[in-house]
Amino acid sequence: MNPPLINQLGVVQRRIVRADAAAVARLSHFGVATIHEAMGRVGLTRPYLRPIYAGAQACGTAVTLLMQPGDNWMMHVVAEQIQPGDIVVAAVTAECSDGFFGDLLATSFQARGACGLVIDAGVRDVKDLTAMKFPVWSKAISAKGTIKATLGSVNIPVICAGALVNPGDVVVADDDGVVVVPAAIAQQVADAARQREDLETTKRAKLASGVLGLDMYQMRGPLEKAGLRYLD
Amino acid sequence: MNPPLINQLGVVQRRIVRADAAAVARLSHFGVATIHEAMGRVGLTRPYLRPIYAGAQACGTAVTLLMQPGDNWMMHVVAEQIQPGDIVVAAVTAECSDGFFGDLLATSFQARGACGLVIDAGVRDVKDLTAMKFPVWSKAISAKGTIKATLGSVNIPVICAGALVNPGDVVVADDDGVVVVPAAIAQQVADAARQREDLETTKRAKLASGVLGLDMYQMRGPLEKAGLRYLD
Amino acid sequence: MNPPLINQLGVVQRRIVRADAAAVARLSHFGVATIHEAMGRVGLTRPYLRPIYAGAQACGTAVTLLMQPGDNWMMHVVAEQIQPGDIVVAAVTAECSDGFFGDLLATSFQARGACGLVIDAGVRDVKDLTAMKFPVWSKAISAKGTIKATLGSVNIPVICAGALVNPGDVVVADDDGVVVVPAAIAQQVADAARQREDLETTKRAKLASGVLGLDMYQMRGPLEKAGLRYLD
Amino acid sequence: MNPPLINQLGVVQRRIVRADAAAVARLSHFGVATIHEAMGRVGLTRPYLRPIYAGAQACGTAVTLLMQPGDNWMMHVVAEQIQPGDIVVAAVTAECSDGFFGDLLATSFQARGACGLVIDAGVRDVKDLTAMKFPVWSKAISAKGTIKATLGSVNIPVICAGALVNPGDVVVADDDGVVVVPAAIAQQVADAARQREDLETTKRAKLASGVLGLDMYQMRGPLEKAGLRYLD
Amino acid sequence: MNPPLINQLGVVQRRIVRADAAAVARLSHFGVATIHEAMGRVGLTRPYLRPIYAGAQACGTAVTLLMQPGDNWMMHVVAEQIQPGDIVVAAVTAECSDGFFGDLLATSFQARGACGLVIDAGVRDVKDLTAMKFPVWSKAISAKGTIKATLGSVNIPVICAGALVNPGDVVVADDDGVVVVPAAIAQQVADAARQREDLETTKRAKLASGVLGLDMYQMRGPLEKAGLRYLD
Amino acid sequence: MNPPLINQLGVVQRRIVRADAAAVARLSHFGVATIHEAMGRVGLTRPYLRPIYAGAQACGTAVTLLMQPGDNWMMHVVAEQIQPGDIVVAAVTAECSDGFFGDLLATSFQARGACGLVIDAGVRDVKDLTAMKFPVWSKAISAKGTIKATLGSVNIPVICAGALVNPGDVVVADDDGVVVVPAAIAQQVADAARQREDLETTKRAKLASGVLGLDMYQMRGPLEKAGLRYLD
Repeated sequence: MNPPLINQLGVVQRRIVRADAAAVARLSHFGVATIHEAMGRVGLTRPYLRPIYAGAQACGTAVTLLMQPGDNWMMHVVAEQIQPGDIVVAAVTAECSDGFFGDLLATSFQARGACGLVIDAGVRDVKDLTAMKFPVWSKAISAKGTIKATLGSVNIPVICAGALVNPGDVVVADDDGVVVVPAAIAQQVADAARQREDLETTKRAKLASGVLGLDMYQMRGPLEKAGLRYLD
Repeated sequence: MNPPLINQLGVVQRRIVRADAAAVARLSHFGVATIHEAMGRVGLTRPYLRPIYAGAQACGTAVTLLMQPGDNWMMHVVAEQIQPGDIVVAAVTAECSDGFFGDLLATSFQARGACGLVIDAGVRDVKDLTAMKFPVWSKAISAKGTIKATLGSVNIPVICAGALVNPGDVVVADDDGVVVVPAAIAQQVADAARQREDLETTKRAKLASGVLGLDMYQMRGPLEKAGLRYLD
Repeated sequence: MNPPLINQLGVVQRRIVRADAAAVARLSHFGVATIHEAMGRVGLTRPYLRPIYAGAQACGTAVTLLMQPGDNWMMHVVAEQIQPGDIVVAAVTAECSDGFFGDLLATSFQARGACGLVIDAGVRDVKDLTAMKFPVWSKAISAKGTIKATLGSVNIPVICAGALVNPGDVVVADDDGVVVVPAAIAQQVADAARQREDLETTKRAKLASGVLGLDMYQMRGPLEKAGLRYLD
Repeated sequence: MNPPLINQLGVVQRRIVRADAAAVARLSHFGVATIHEAMGRVGLTRPYLRPIYAGAQACGTAVTLLMQPGDNWMMHVVAEQIQPGDIVVAAVTAECSDGFFGDLLATSFQARGACGLVIDAGVRDVKDLTAMKFPVWSKAISAKGTIKATLGSVNIPVICAGALVNPGDVVVADDDGVVVVPAAIAQQVADAARQREDLETTKRAKLASGVLGLDMYQMRGPLEKAGLRYLD
Repeated sequence: MNPPLINQLGVVQRRIVRADAAAVARLSHFGVATIHEAMGRVGLTRPYLRPIYAGAQACGTAVTLLMQPGDNWMMHVVAEQIQPGDIVVAAVTAECSDGFFGDLLATSFQARGACGLVIDAGVRDVKDLTAMKFPVWSKAISAKGTIKATLGSVNIPVICAGALVNPGDVVVADDDGVVVVPAAIAQQVADAARQREDLETTKRAKLASGVLGLDMYQMRGPLEKAGLRYLD
Repeated sequence: MNPPLINQLGVVQRRIVRADAAAVARLSHFGVATIHEAMGRVGLTRPYLRPIYAGAQACGTAVTLLMQPGDNWMMHVVAEQIQPGDIVVAAVTAECSDGFFGDLLATSFQARGACGLVIDAGVRDVKDLTAMKFPVWSKAISAKGTIKATLGSVNIPVICAGALVNPGDVVVADDDGVVVVPAAIAQQVADAARQREDLETTKRAKLASGVLGLDMYQMRGPLEKAGLRYLD
């Protein structure tokens, strides 16, 4: 491990430990809501990150980058670090809605095997990205271009829309948002998500038949104890 | 009527007076914009409530609930109070974007006959909700789960996204937003909406033929009187 | 040219100089992102203006109007000034999310030959507007109606969502946002956009074949010079 | 009581029942946080309402008004309904940041005996209002003027920044925000607030002496039961 | 006059025509609210621009600059163009909250005779700026620094927080916000503001004595005609 | 070190390594802007965190906590972990503006020796906190109370307003915002900040005497090379 850096900008970490491929494959079957519940209701990005098209879905290992506002130079640097099955997670040192990413970069990322992009900033060419089926979760859509003048870093831990992402973590994203699963617990989380989902299938059938959650979850007692009063 | 309560939380009102079914049926034919105009340009929720899918539409009688931030316990309590044709209106005592509602609760609500949900907070499982055609108007989409620890109330008057909703009121929602029609004036509003819509059909044809609103509405005189100057 | 007005409200400029039709036709082939880059990364409205439906696209000459919050009287005045191929650009003197525009006005605008509306406020009847294929870029969707009581102006320079629009300017809008091209430089911008797009076709093919932007743009030298360090 | 109105705009209710003066006097000794806790954590406006100067404080009986965006005509109508000790509560039918209120109206309100203004919109002349010591809680500060063209209503129930306010209710406001106490429970709430405050004095002394909340509130057991683990 | 530029970035206009000094002096006696009313309720920046300290006040002739997000290089270029009595007006091509300005630049601007800064972005060192009594109206306060890598322009027309500012215009700012008076009408606006203020003195006295606006402005007739109903 | 936890909630880390006291003392002499520059323009929280009173200042070692929205139970748990000179850093798993902290907790924190609080949520009793001179940087001021029902964690790494904070890191906060200095580089950062500040003193004197930044920083050449044109 490298010593702490006073300046964390200007660094590309080439060797990262990606989460176990089998765990990634297993996690890809679950929704974001299920996974974050399996982790104890943590790991989500803020809900302002939204998919650029309905039905977008991605599950991959994170390669990360940190950029300065209005400058997407590191997007080209990160491209070289992408391996098939990776998802790119982009953070910015300050709030910025500029379009850091468009169809050219998406073409490059897709050629490298990336399965999506999560970015705490804006993107553009969304019509093309949609046609290419390259899923993106972003804070904004903006045609505003960026420059290539200041260094950022690649594959350092980043904070993206309020979530800590370490290179190699599993990132799962769908219509409900984005969740980050630390690589070290990916299998465990997949197990817990499986359990949860199995339970939900049974519950769904009961609820569909008209059984109330009040009864299925045995809530009537606790509610009464908490003081709930029924009036007529 | 019950005496005023110092603590309005912890109460479920079982008996509510729903708006006349015929009036509800009539109101279901009009858009939200038409109805709020018929009421004198009032009754709308704030426009930040948006449908989770394009083309969502609902018209029903309100069953209401008030929850604390991050706690959806009352969702299960309200389910029991739903009657076919109801729409659930959920308010929170403070701003919260958590996902208070997902596909399991939607299954339960749909089994009880609910025709939709209006919620001043977040929801999740939007892909499933869309597939189920269960329309929801919400402030946010968020995978963030909630707990079941504090009491709220069911079927008390609530303020949802800036609009007062009494249990039994008619709530109409479409792509333009959400409007609340007090039960006592539902017939009157339906009458006024009908009149307005009849007028609009004629106007639309005129405008389509090239007649100007300036002439159709006889605005030239008032504009001149107000001081409008034409320059060349 | 008219002398400066102490009160810029209450004026309709009937004669405006529209951008050259050939230039408008040429600009209609480019996306908003390409055009704003061709202009030196300026001319965009703020990204909070969004199309009311995915895939919306428009390119026309601007007729402009300035309104007071909650008052859409000038919408009827501007209708008369529309010529085929125009796009209406509406500004408001203060922030307002009311629905200033709906299906009746759209019918009128379409009958006059307008190809779209850009508005720094809200619109309504979005289902109808979508069915009519009348593209609108707006700040909000709101059923809230407006009154007709105060004067604004038509065909004066306006600031719409942070962009200056002079009557006759070319306005291009798509899924990425809205860009304003001053009439006097429309041909030049079309030339520059053409050059840019030609280059992009070649680049896209290279990137798709796996060539990295790092090599294609010869960035390795500059990055090293800027101090980028690779760690293993 | 009057029958429900299809159009709630255009009405001035002259006779309102103000909360008991003794209860208002008692409530004036408590902070907003204490009062809302005494009511069961309800009754607050959204926290975006902020005082225009630090240390602002007011407690009075509500006279209410509902206005349309950009139009402050009803401010003059409400002035006549003010009685000494009243606080004016102003709502708007849609979001608007215009300056509905300035030093002239404040002079008039103060002459009538009003002790403050709570408004879900903007105000101006804040330097003068501060000098006059006329406290205002508002959503925005804006020099933007309004017109006098459309009717609203005075002394109807209004929703102000998410809180329901009935004419005659007690409204208490300080640096922490604004709380609404229904007139019918003002005495009860004052009792509960008194109890709460008495308890807090003792608690404050204990905490100041170094006693931990963990011990004072006997939380160690419940925390352990909930599963809290201490690691070294 | 120079021909239109396809790229408006990279230009410094050295010669600008400043508004008449006598007009500026006269305008400095009025508040922002009064001036914008005298202009017909136009000319304001959006209300999100706020002074960094209470009581800030400035009136000067505008020197303008346009910057790219995260890059304050042009701040040093504009410094050379400042003449005593100028106020600097800074716009950015996209939304950015970075701190573009701090105590060093303020020292330089003050040495050149600038009387303030209006910026549609962030500033820092606000404690020092307050101590120096250098008034700033900004969108944000942020310690985040910027780079010096991309060109912008100086003394071109800019749009700052929604207001068009031409170099040489009079900019007046106080606790209520910021207003822009085009140089050509500065005297006229000063005249109108004087008239308005004279009237207000009389009105204030009347209102303070208890006369109602309803009577002073003779509103009772128009209100009745508009349909206002008084209920008891 | 402990193994990774699938559920990071429900844990209190008692033993943390605090940054060297001498380094903390040295850092306390610098402003937030200086420190973040010394670190390479990183380490800041988002600028929406604001001090509750002007002139607030704090520099201490972080004790951290993570809470669920609307639940401040962990505030009492963290109190026990405070040592003199600590600053408490509070994060929430989802956006929440509730008042998690007031004068009672401040009394307890102050008794334990805490020098301030940084919280990505709301606080209340701000008048008392100001009188106590207990500095707080928060996202909101809200009287809304919280419950004590769900576990969070104490002294785990947290993300607060976009910044990663490890227990023991140095947190410096003033009117410009909040910056986090990793414990391991505290001395280095203090060195760099000292250098930077020394340079600034000289620069300030030059700029005050009228020297331009253009000359002092030798920018004229680079600007010309970048293509800056001066027009007359």
